[in-house]
Amino acid sequence: MDIIHKKITSNELLNNLKDLKGKTGQICFKLAGINLIIKNTDTIGVTLQLWLKEYFNKKNYFYMQPSNTQEFPDFYLNDTNPNDNMLEIKSFNYKRTPSFDIANFDSYCSEIEEKPYCLYADYLIFGYNMEDGIISIKKMWLKKVWEISGTSKKYPLKVQEKRNKIYNIRPNSYFKNDKEPVFKNEIEFLTALFETIKFDKGEKVALKWKKTFICNYKKYYNKNINF
Amino acid sequence: MDIIHKKITSNELLNNLKDLKGKTGQICFKLAGINLIIKNTDTIGVTLQLWLKEYFNKKNYFYMQPSNTQEFPDFYLNDTNPNDNMLEIKSFNYKRTPSFDIANFDSYCSEIEEKPYCLYADYLIFGYNMEDGIISIKKMWLKKVWEISGTSKKYPLKVQEKRNKIYNIRPNSYFKNDKEPVFKNEIEFLTALFETIKFDKGEKVALKWKKTFICNYKKYYNKNINF
Repeated sequence: MDIIHKKITSNELLNNLKDLKGKTGQICFKLAGINLIIKNTDTIGVTLQLWLKEYFNKKNYFYMQPSNTQEFPDFYLNDTNPNDNMLEIKSFNYKRTPSFDIANFDSYCSEIEEKPYCLYADYLIFGYNMEDGIISIKKMWLKKVWEISGTSKKYPLKVQEKRNKIYNIRPNSYFKNDKEPVFKNEIEFLTALFETIKFDKGEKVALKWKKTFICNYKKYYNKNINF
Repeated sequence: MDIIHKKITSNELLNNLKDLKGKTGQICFKLAGINLIIKNTDTIGVTLQLWLKEYFNKKNYFYMQPSNTQEFPDFYLNDTNPNDNMLEIKSFNYKRTPSFDIANFDSYCSEIEEKPYCLYADYLIFGYNMEDGIISIKKMWLKKVWEISGTSKKYPLKVQEKRNKIYNIRPNSYFKNDKEPVFKNEIEFLTALFETIKFDKGEKVALKWKKTFICNYKKYYNKNINF
């Protein structure tokens, strides 16, 4: 008998995961007679994502993943409308300021330029504690990219920068602190993205990006967007 | 009674680790009733480094680490001459081409510009297999940066590049395949580094970098270097 996989939305997923709050876990490593409990937080993000995949399998929830797991998104929750049910998984140490990479800045710009529906991906965010190797899930959120993004002193969009080179789009703390997001909607987020491209690569590049985005948005959604 | 920590060189370490070849291990994660064996290789590098730290502790080997573990180097093996006993830990899937990041390109340039002794750090490299969650150590190497670096079509130094932006210095496969390295010594490596800075940021920036490096090298080693 074939297994029937249940299709769930990301909101249903968040609801089904609510029992996870307060649960504890640990990462172990055994090699050559040395048994180790990992007390470092560097691998928690990837590990929670692999855990979620196993959770989907155990619960018979439907999902697909890109063949290259480095690619966007982490999961598709629906094969009828895969592009409208994209899920990205993020996590951060709840005792600190959220500092995960939302995405590589250049890759994200190209991604939504060509595939404007990527703008509407859901971000499932785990806030965890790590105390002497014991990981506990403190809180979970389901957000859109504009609800977790912010601005910085230098750039209209908050980014990680090293030696004047933009690397990644980074979140701010508003969602963690239950404050209203900086950007009310995708239009305000796109405006900040456009202004940041302009600042970083000049107006010509920014305008070309905007034009292609608007054109592809119109093609996909059959309606206009402007910012 | 105080524990006396043994000081070992990186060569002694490599020798002491030789029994590790062929040994197997696995990474596990337990959370909320789901027990998971990690079958993804993304976290192996960090995990092997944490394992090595535990190995040092068990064997009473002396080591120090920068307070910020993101900083260079991963370990100092000696407190009398810490700068001459730096150890970086790298690992890669032995079935594939080595693709670890030797270092962020910009950070590495600044690092050796200010602290020229960083050029002589040792790289302990683990080549592992991962088969259905079972990790086995296939081979280990101890190398200098110029012995694992190479050139690429576009740049004199092999780097990881995304959308015309240089991110990281990447190794080539010569060390894995027991071939003579592309760069015979640090001078040839520095020349490739200089030419890559020139290509990426222009001659003025490259010359300024070179001048500072040469000056700091002279200060530290009390001898001249030129390339």
